[in-house]
Amino acid sequence: MPIKNGAEYVESLRGRKVKVYLFNELVKEPVDHPMIRPSINAVAATYDIANEEPEMAAAKSSISGHNVNRFLHIAESADDLVNQNKMQRRLGQLTGTCFQRCVGMDALNSLYSTTFEIDQKYKTPYHRRLIDFIKMIQRENFVIGGAMTDTKGDRSLSPSQQPDPDMFLHIVKRDKKGVYVTGAKAHQTGCINSHWIIVMPTMRLKAEDKDYAIVGAVPVDAPGITYIYGRQSCDTRSMEEGDMDAGNSKFAGQEAMIVFEDVFIPNELIFMDGEYDYAAMLVERFTCYHRRSYVCKTGLGDVLIGAAAAIADYNGVASASHIRDKLVEMTHLNETIFGTGIASSYQAHKTASGNWQNDDMLANVCKHNVTRFPYEIGRLAQDIAGGLMVTMPSEKDFRGKVTGPILEKYLKGRKGVSTENRVRILRLIENMTLGRNAVGYLTESMHGAGSPQAQRIQIARQMQLEYKKKLAKDLANVKEGEAAETAQESTEYFDKIFGAGKKKKAK
Amino acid sequence: MPIKNGAEYVESLRGRKVKVYLFNELVKEPVDHPMIRPSINAVAATYDIANEEPEMAAAKSSISGHNVNRFLHIAESADDLVNQNKMQRRLGQLTGTCFQRCVGMDALNSLYSTTFEIDQKYKTPYHRRLIDFIKMIQRENFVIGGAMTDTKGDRSLSPSQQPDPDMFLHIVKRDKKGVYVTGAKAHQTGCINSHWIIVMPTMRLKAEDKDYAIVGAVPVDAPGITYIYGRQSCDTRSMEEGDMDAGNSKFAGQEAMIVFEDVFIPNELIFMDGEYDYAAMLVERFTCYHRRSYVCKTGLGDVLIGAAAAIADYNGVASASHIRDKLVEMTHLNETIFGTGIASSYQAHKTASGNWQNDDMLANVCKHNVTRFPYEIGRLAQDIAGGLMVTMPSEKDFRGKVTGPILEKYLKGRKGVSTENRVRILRLIENMTLGRNAVGYLTESMHGAGSPQAQRIQIARQMQLEYKKKLAKDLANVKEGEAAETAQESTEYFDKIFGAGKKKKAK
Amino acid sequence: MPIKNGAEYVESLRGRKVKVYLFNELVKEPVDHPMIRPSINAVAATYDIANEEPEMAAAKSSISGHNVNRFLHIAESADDLVNQNKMQRRLGQLTGTCFQRCVGMDALNSLYSTTFEIDQKYKTPYHRRLIDFIKMIQRENFVIGGAMTDTKGDRSLSPSQQPDPDMFLHIVKRDKKGVYVTGAKAHQTGCINSHWIIVMPTMRLKAEDKDYAIVGAVPVDAPGITYIYGRQSCDTRSMEEGDMDAGNSKFAGQEAMIVFEDVFIPNELIFMDGEYDYAAMLVERFTCYHRRSYVCKTGLGDVLIGAAAAIADYNGVASASHIRDKLVEMTHLNETIFGTGIASSYQAHKTASGNWQNDDMLANVCKHNVTRFPYEIGRLAQDIAGGLMVTMPSEKDFRGKVTGPILEKYLKGRKGVSTENRVRILRLIENMTLGRNAVGYLTESMHGAGSPQAQRIQIARQMQLEYKKKLAKDLANVKEGEAAETAQESTEYFDKIFGAGKKKKAK
Amino acid sequence: MPIKNGAEYVESLRGRKVKVYLFNELVKEPVDHPMIRPSINAVAATYDIANEEPEMAAAKSSISGHNVNRFLHIAESADDLVNQNKMQRRLGQLTGTCFQRCVGMDALNSLYSTTFEIDQKYKTPYHRRLIDFIKMIQRENFVIGGAMTDTKGDRSLSPSQQPDPDMFLHIVKRDKKGVYVTGAKAHQTGCINSHWIIVMPTMRLKAEDKDYAIVGAVPVDAPGITYIYGRQSCDTRSMEEGDMDAGNSKFAGQEAMIVFEDVFIPNELIFMDGEYDYAAMLVERFTCYHRRSYVCKTGLGDVLIGAAAAIADYNGVASASHIRDKLVEMTHLNETIFGTGIASSYQAHKTASGNWQNDDMLANVCKHNVTRFPYEIGRLAQDIAGGLMVTMPSEKDFRGKVTGPILEKYLKGRKGVSTENRVRILRLIENMTLGRNAVGYLTESMHGAGSPQAQRIQIARQMQLEYKKKLAKDLANVKEGEAAETAQESTEYFDKIFGAGKKKKAK
Repeated sequence: MPIKNGAEYVESLRGRKVKVYLFNELVKEPVDHPMIRPSINAVAATYDIANEEPEMAAAKSSISGHNVNRFLHIAESADDLVNQNKMQRRLGQLTGTCFQRCVGMDALNSLYSTTFEIDQKYKTPYHRRLIDFIKMIQRENFVIGGAMTDTKGDRSLSPSQQPDPDMFLHIVKRDKKGVYVTGAKAHQTGCINSHWIIVMPTMRLKAEDKDYAIVGAVPVDAPGITYIYGRQSCDTRSMEEGDMDAGNSKFAGQEAMIVFEDVFIPNELIFMDGEYDYAAMLVERFTCYHRRSYVCKTGLGDVLIGAAAAIADYNGVASASHIRDKLVEMTHLNETIFGTGIASSYQAHKTASGNWQNDDMLANVCKHNVTRFPYEIGRLAQDIAGGLMVTMPSEKDFRGKVTGPILEKYLKGRKGVSTENRVRILRLIENMTLGRNAVGYLTESMHGAGSPQAQRIQIARQMQLEYKKKLAKDLANVKEGEAAETAQESTEYFDKIFGAGKKKKAK
Repeated sequence: MPIKNGAEYVESLRGRKVKVYLFNELVKEPVDHPMIRPSINAVAATYDIANEEPEMAAAKSSISGHNVNRFLHIAESADDLVNQNKMQRRLGQLTGTCFQRCVGMDALNSLYSTTFEIDQKYKTPYHRRLIDFIKMIQRENFVIGGAMTDTKGDRSLSPSQQPDPDMFLHIVKRDKKGVYVTGAKAHQTGCINSHWIIVMPTMRLKAEDKDYAIVGAVPVDAPGITYIYGRQSCDTRSMEEGDMDAGNSKFAGQEAMIVFEDVFIPNELIFMDGEYDYAAMLVERFTCYHRRSYVCKTGLGDVLIGAAAAIADYNGVASASHIRDKLVEMTHLNETIFGTGIASSYQAHKTASGNWQNDDMLANVCKHNVTRFPYEIGRLAQDIAGGLMVTMPSEKDFRGKVTGPILEKYLKGRKGVSTENRVRILRLIENMTLGRNAVGYLTESMHGAGSPQAQRIQIARQMQLEYKKKLAKDLANVKEGEAAETAQESTEYFDKIFGAGKKKKAK
Repeated sequence: MPIKNGAEYVESLRGRKVKVYLFNELVKEPVDHPMIRPSINAVAATYDIANEEPEMAAAKSSISGHNVNRFLHIAESADDLVNQNKMQRRLGQLTGTCFQRCVGMDALNSLYSTTFEIDQKYKTPYHRRLIDFIKMIQRENFVIGGAMTDTKGDRSLSPSQQPDPDMFLHIVKRDKKGVYVTGAKAHQTGCINSHWIIVMPTMRLKAEDKDYAIVGAVPVDAPGITYIYGRQSCDTRSMEEGDMDAGNSKFAGQEAMIVFEDVFIPNELIFMDGEYDYAAMLVERFTCYHRRSYVCKTGLGDVLIGAAAAIADYNGVASASHIRDKLVEMTHLNETIFGTGIASSYQAHKTASGNWQNDDMLANVCKHNVTRFPYEIGRLAQDIAGGLMVTMPSEKDFRGKVTGPILEKYLKGRKGVSTENRVRILRLIENMTLGRNAVGYLTESMHGAGSPQAQRIQIARQMQLEYKKKLAKDLANVKEGEAAETAQESTEYFDKIFGAGKKKKAK
Repeated sequence: MPIKNGAEYVESLRGRKVKVYLFNELVKEPVDHPMIRPSINAVAATYDIANEEPEMAAAKSSISGHNVNRFLHIAESADDLVNQNKMQRRLGQLTGTCFQRCVGMDALNSLYSTTFEIDQKYKTPYHRRLIDFIKMIQRENFVIGGAMTDTKGDRSLSPSQQPDPDMFLHIVKRDKKGVYVTGAKAHQTGCINSHWIIVMPTMRLKAEDKDYAIVGAVPVDAPGITYIYGRQSCDTRSMEEGDMDAGNSKFAGQEAMIVFEDVFIPNELIFMDGEYDYAAMLVERFTCYHRRSYVCKTGLGDVLIGAAAAIADYNGVASASHIRDKLVEMTHLNETIFGTGIASSYQAHKTASGNWQNDDMLANVCKHNVTRFPYEIGRLAQDIAGGLMVTMPSEKDFRGKVTGPILEKYLKGRKGVSTENRVRILRLIENMTLGRNAVGYLTESMHGAGSPQAQRIQIARQMQLEYKKKLAKDLANVKEGEAAETAQESTEYFDKIFGAGKKKKAK
């Protein structure tokens, strides 16, 4: 029986044997832990939106034939990818945080085309297995986490060269029924809030790294898995009384380390096993989807712009030209991210397997903007907010018998605005620029789906300098015999844009 | 008999009675004037591309039933708009300058929907007339210029309040056959290179400005029209011997002032006459198209990135990490413009008249990026180029008996690179960052289709602060009765994104 | 007997009757409160540096004839001001936070010249009283807080127009011995850690605001004063076991609200009483000093650059060219702040009272850079740090029996680097970009000594457009009779640079 | 008899045997060439200012005992260096271009200390010779050009490794009376307008490059020297009738290639001959002075800000908040350059020879800002100017019988502003952002005194990461034995700031 909504989702998490450490204690029931619960609420929102805005957040899957949550849908058109972006922005608006479900969506989609191509070459059964798995999770409406980032050890060494072989997750044993894996995946978004986790290699592999070329699905509470919860700025405010100081008391993100010790993956849930030459393809397709998924941050941007506009209003300066101008700038930057993101989705192409893959150059450009603009939007939000944002007393003081009336008297905004509402909006801005959700809005914007330099490398790979040099030389009347060089470009970005590129190039 | 290609287009311009002043002399035949010709060559490229890359640069028009140049096509889908962008980028790549034909394309498309809506309200015959006009120009394959920007006089006064009534083009006389207009349109792109000019009001009008609410088509050499040619940086290099110092000797832009003195417009070519309440709609739809048309600058950006990469190669520093990094940055900025531009086109909606209008918020965001990034791309190109770019001797010195061998000896690049080729690439960078085409790449990027502040105003109008404030207040648990406020937003940007999505896409 | 060092200073704070609310509880002894203590440690550092680096941090005062802490010194030369900047940077390096003592230093210096000029006009005794006060605090080596920022209420109304007269601190009663004041000062840096507080008006006043034109000194624990402690991001980590998660467990800033209820100021400690026409002068001189005092943030910048360099080293990527390049960029921005700050000090002039006032234009330019560059430096630090910075488990988990060894195994840096040290550096970066000292490094950089718009207004006042327009017109051969206009400039920035240079330098 | 003023200077240039090629013709008399003359006028301004503002632009030299032009003065204090900066800004304001005399000033000062140190080591007579030379030029009041930048050939090879030995200037012959040199110096500022040229090596040399380690003075018209004049954007406008289209018809910069063929340098004018180990010191000291000399660009910035303010006024939009805000931003950026520049001068130290050397870190920071901010100031100027700046007809059209009245009618600004004055200001903005002086304001700002990467390398050398890492580790409680490392820093930037402060200041 499928999970029907957010509330049922929350219940579905109860009573699992999941082993989570937080502050060096085993968490009894994560669902009830005040510091964990906001991250569960954020995932729950991904269920409710599919009911409330089904055209955007649900889709009919050709695989199962059912209407499914878009996070579990394999993209069947460019519009499907665009709708992912719209849903991501909307969920960002509704939660003000990371709702943790994009990794799974992007992992399923990149595995879909990659397993198809592995099978074509090696006659393996991965694509069929994956389809069975997708049917099951679509039927049950599960949350899927994708575990990619290994802890990596010495970065100058490949997986199999590491002194400690566990620095990358790898097969330690295999029997007729399946394989056993050991290793750890760092800062895994929403892992504890998932039902299944798909492990995947984190980088290009070589022949000697064969045992590291493993992809498979495991239940979140599989024996041998330990989670160690990651701290966030201001995380313990969720454990204080009251809801004001948290800023956004209902929603937060989640990142934890997943430690695998001899964790079993049965054959039917293995989607790659030794085909090291496809690790790079999987990683590249995943990051291509995922870098564009950071469009979600425009939803958070909308919240922060709204908070800045609200506090300007409360402070009585909403019509000051410099305030107005800053709000315009924040909007401009936010929509620039959105534009580059959906452009990547619109410019998608169909893969051999039949699903759709977004444009890689524009995905990298989108994500690269995400590593910059949220910081500037956050800076401008702090500018508009005023210094009070970081010097306000605690909620307890606002509720205090002595201090409450004093603060009420002195911290009022413009006429008609309650001190409490003013404080609440300021705490939300603190939450998103310094506090718990700044982790998601800023630092995760920097490093999630690859750090800035990773995007620059990918942009460099596709920038087609030979093509561009030829344009310049033609206009400058430079005569050289350079036709040959042009053919060597490693990418087809402009072919994809201009279409008849191939014919056009033939001179 | 239609114009079939660039060469025929050039010939079609000969022998007209067009009155052009340049350096206070009447130009005998613009086609043969060395300073004007490069701008004509750029327009000619718009003909040739329709033959060479018809899928991108031509389209079958439902109006005439023929395959027509895309610049004369009324957009029948979002993809039509996206293809405009791709064609614009490609032409930018091929010419390295402004090819001057977008104003006409965007004017025809905005008139198409506006005349339809005027007719619906006032039972006027404008839409039918426009369709006849479009059929004719599609048949003949003409270049259409759109004349919008009045000289404006005192900016604090409306058209009818000006001490001199001619500060905005207006009707000075009318008879049974048509109307007579007087006024001037400033910095009109490609006007002399057009066959027809469509005059349009430049701003929102009021009842008392009725005589200024005139839209109509006139031949470029209509009696009463005088053109005064605009100077560009380094323009006279086109008149010097040789082709090196010009940097891009083949292509350039054109902007001139058009002065109208009692110019006649016959009834059949009048598309608005007194419906002042539709002036704003026309202007807004035009600028919405046109701000996104600045995607053309990414084509120029490709040329400049190519030139920078070429000179780095010639200087023997192509693999230096800081050089590489600057090329990546230039590419990132360039693609950010492209992404926001095509996103605007993809997010188009169908108008009442049946043609397609791109998204306004994203069009403004695209153009606003165009007022910034080309300057930074230009700065980085100069950084990579080195100081020689602005201190090289003239082509005459390179050809000189004494100086030639000296320069050949001392200004060589890395082995295998001729001094001349090195100089040619540097001159191209000069051309695009200081010289003739810097006008188009930089200053026109700033002011064309509206200066930066115009975009900020338009972004402000659509930023939906009430919607965003509500998002923030919901997350911050602010309780107020604000439902009403939200309804007052003057825009539907988010509705278009989240709401009517499905219907819009139905093709 | 004067306070001799940091340790004695800490002891000097014990046992006072100061009334501090924190989390709605009266704090028994602030010195022993784990959340308050780090801010006291930071002030203590200002004592120790005077012993350790006396040439920079101490000075011989002509007032008392003694060698005094520079924070209590009235500047007797431009070099004195430059040494303030150097000391500020050094203390920023040593504490990584706000050491809270600049407000008092800048208040004393601005009062010194302002009281002199009031006395000249009104024959009042303020300057003499101030000198007596200075002699006393120099003798005792006290910490002086300056309380300026009123809570302001409705910002469109002047102090005397407010419905609630207490929105600005004002005299509510007076008798032969002195006056009684009521009101509140918001976000007062280091107030509880001071021995004396000087209250000052916060803005330009008019005749009807006479009762608000009050300057005077009160002991920190004077009857009628209540402090309500301000929360900071991650503040309660100071109250957790261990020292790792705090990032910088020893030092932090402090901002609290000071509430005055009928607080008595004796005549001898009143330095302005009703001379409303001098309020603006006092505020402007104070902000002129104080905006340049933000050079302290370059010391914090040094720490953050060092932390970024350390983590890059620990991660084994210190020699990657993009890492190196980011460290250079951080340094460049940091030194730009430093350069503009000391330039303001060097360009000081002597006031009528004999002390020295730094240049106002450059002070504003310095502070304006401070509202931008630390955010970018912080962004780059997060870039270099990697995502682990915000996803690491708690110190307790690192110490845990089960989790400790796992984390030790998987979170190691390059060979030779302990996991703990890696974590410690990451926590420091978190502390400065999201946590407790991000308040000081980022948000206080934005709003302290005036928000960005305040600097822009001040820069606008001094930008001498008439002077500059004349330069342009002369070069463009524009003929107008404009000599008169030029005389009307409200500022003398260029006179100070070009003109009075010689005299100013004569010492 | 010394040159007494600008007019005498101009006359002093007449009748020399200087061999200058321009457009492949030998220039008869440079003084009378309309394209060259503006650059001579700019140098002439350096004479007049010494008469008009002697406290800033002249100084009493301890060497000759006379009051001399500051450009010929050896700095005897930090204030001398600061006054250089002030004079540089002022001349930038008065000419709007490069006045070409700083290279000589900075060369003399760096040679002064370097020859002293060479002599100390090698008992050579260079310092005494230099002093004699300085006495002579101070007596005659000559213009000195410094020729440093060799053409370099293949950048991966050292001077002596080049296939063509002339790629770097070197000694080809020597006799009892002196040496003969051959080679070429590229883009030499103001060389033809100088009286003497000092040749210097352009980079660090090794033992095998001994013949390249030559410093010496030659008269500008020495036998064997050929100049090839560099083109600038819009240079030929100086040769057109009228003065409007040039924008700044009076002043311009000059850069030419100097070709040396067996040019004789007598012994008494040789200041280095084979001491290759001092080449790096000379270059570093020179660039240290010279990077800070780019403060001159703030004078050009003042002109451009003034022009932008003037055109805003003429357009009737001077009080628009966004215009005002852009003028503030331009000012802020301009003053940031100024602040970092004079900070470098103020932080000077005394060399062994007794003259003063400015701070290197801050000099690089200053210049690095110069490679960025003028571009942004220029962009904002174009924003304020409006599109007319690049589409205006020629001066001839403004003077034309037919076109003149039309343009007068349609291109008027606000009431009371003549069309001509509006055009003149726009042409000045064109001149500085695209035209002749954009070469100096933009591209030379980028590459003069070293390209951006050169500054980044120098900043990297001095950023003292070990020092900063220690700060971070101390605060993060990281325990390692790292004292030793700290000692290895190659620079003493912080020592200079914190340490020797007092002694350095002792005058």
